Amino acid sequence: MKPQSIDNYFTTRGTVRAYDPDRQVDPNLIRRLVSVAAQAPNTGNMQIYCAVMTTDPDEIKALAPAHFSQPAIMNAKSVLTFCIDFRRYHRWCQLGGGEPGLNNLQGYTWGVLDTAIFAQQFVTLAELEGLGTCYLGTTTYNAPMIADTLKLPNGVVPVITVTVGYPAENPLVSERLPLNAILHDGVYHDPTDEDLKDFYSEKESMESYRRFVEENGKENLAQLYAQVRYPRASNEHFSAVLKKFIKAQGIDI
Amino acid sequence: MKPQSIDNYFTTRGTVRAYDPDRQVDPNLIRRLVSVAAQAPNTGNMQIYCAVMTTDPDEIKALAPAHFSQPAIMNAKSVLTFCIDFRRYHRWCQLGGGEPGLNNLQGYTWGVLDTAIFAQQFVTLAELEGLGTCYLGTTTYNAPMIADTLKLPNGVVPVITVTVGYPAENPLVSERLPLNAILHDGVYHDPTDEDLKDFYSEKESMESYRRFVEENGKENLAQLYAQVRYPRASNEHFSAVLKKFIKAQGIDI
Repeated sequence: MKPQSIDNYFTTRGTVRAYDPDRQVDPNLIRRLVSVAAQAPNTGNMQIYCAVMTTDPDEIKALAPAHFSQPAIMNAKSVLTFCIDFRRYHRWCQLGGGEPGLNNLQGYTWGVLDTAIFAQQFVTLAELEGLGTCYLGTTTYNAPMIADTLKLPNGVVPVITVTVGYPAENPLVSERLPLNAILHDGVYHDPTDEDLKDFYSEKESMESYRRFVEENGKENLAQLYAQVRYPRASNEHFSAVLKKFIKAQGIDI
Repeated sequence: MKPQSIDNYFTTRGTVRAYDPDRQVDPNLIRRLVSVAAQAPNTGNMQIYCAVMTTDPDEIKALAPAHFSQPAIMNAKSVLTFCIDFRRYHRWCQLGGGEPGLNNLQGYTWGVLDTAIFAQQFVTLAELEGLGTCYLGTTTYNAPMIADTLKLPNGVVPVITVTVGYPAENPLVSERLPLNAILHDGVYHDPTDEDLKDFYSEKESMESYRRFVEENGKENLAQLYAQVRYPRASNEHFSAVLKKFIKAQGIDI
């Protein structure tokens, strides 16, 4: 399952949600990959992140409800919860007599950035090693439950989770918007309505999406996204939960 | 300058801030790398990000003050400003009659995550191609200035910038904390004060840091970080600037 070449890997990589039930993932392999992933760039070399590795099947099961027990976590062999970690850095500063001050919106934003870069470097390394991975965006929905399960102290906020296992399916290589939708030359060029329709036309014509739209009784994919997948009311509810949790962790955003 | 092997690349990669003044970076190479980078995972395949590419030397100069005119941008051949972009997604939803709702803390957090993952995939691809890169964390300090220069409309927030050029120096491979400082097994294990001192002892004994501490009249590295590099007052000032800007861009965090 190792990719044939680097170029080939980056253009054909995709999420893997089904893992070989009979093939364990060596925790020492995960440790080595995490160690190398930390060589990724980070803000001021403060390393304001950490990861919690869950490998025990019962402990994975205990973590699953926070991710709505989706298949990727239910059959994962290893789960990595990537967190902002101001605690280590703040305690170190305090031990040296310095008063640190990352627990604000700048610190939170750097924390999310650095944790994501660290996580993505891990994902690249894991996939190049032949492992399948899946990001769980549910992490910020149920951060309080995750913090409780993983005993995350004040100053630590889970932001993204990666499930890992040897693939039992081919990676799902999903379509992307055309380059001119995501890259602007010199300044931001606002697309016309016609441009916008063009950007999304390939996606909207795909059989899988059309079926999904129909099953949900919607007129089109935009309605499916806005009303079913990521409805405002749900996002606002979970934003309030997340904000309360972040503040309780001592971060004033 | 191409890395000899993938394994070697990931363990020896580092930031490059000095670029060959005589060697241009082909904008079409950047376009190809950005296009491949977009194959990185993202939340719900919404692609709530964009990048603005600056290659004109005068336009790079115009962007530099927002990054305190640091050397990496002053001699960069190409600059990529990676932004959260809710605008494209929201407009598309509205065209289809759906009411989108990402302009809140959940959306902001996913936006920062996805933009960082996209940027990091670009950095990996660029470095494997033999280019040198440097992240500019100053992006969130001066987001309003950057938005003004790059004509970023409502719903678009710059979060991280990458400078690019062919290396005129070897990558700076900087030290990292030991693995047990950043990886926890099963649950978060709070280090003792002694553990913490151990984690940072290698860093604190480095000649380069010791000189930096002395030059700034501080007692130790923790004080240098907390009082000189990332002082609370400065972080809080720039947090207020960022919050005001994010709200002005229509995002209610």
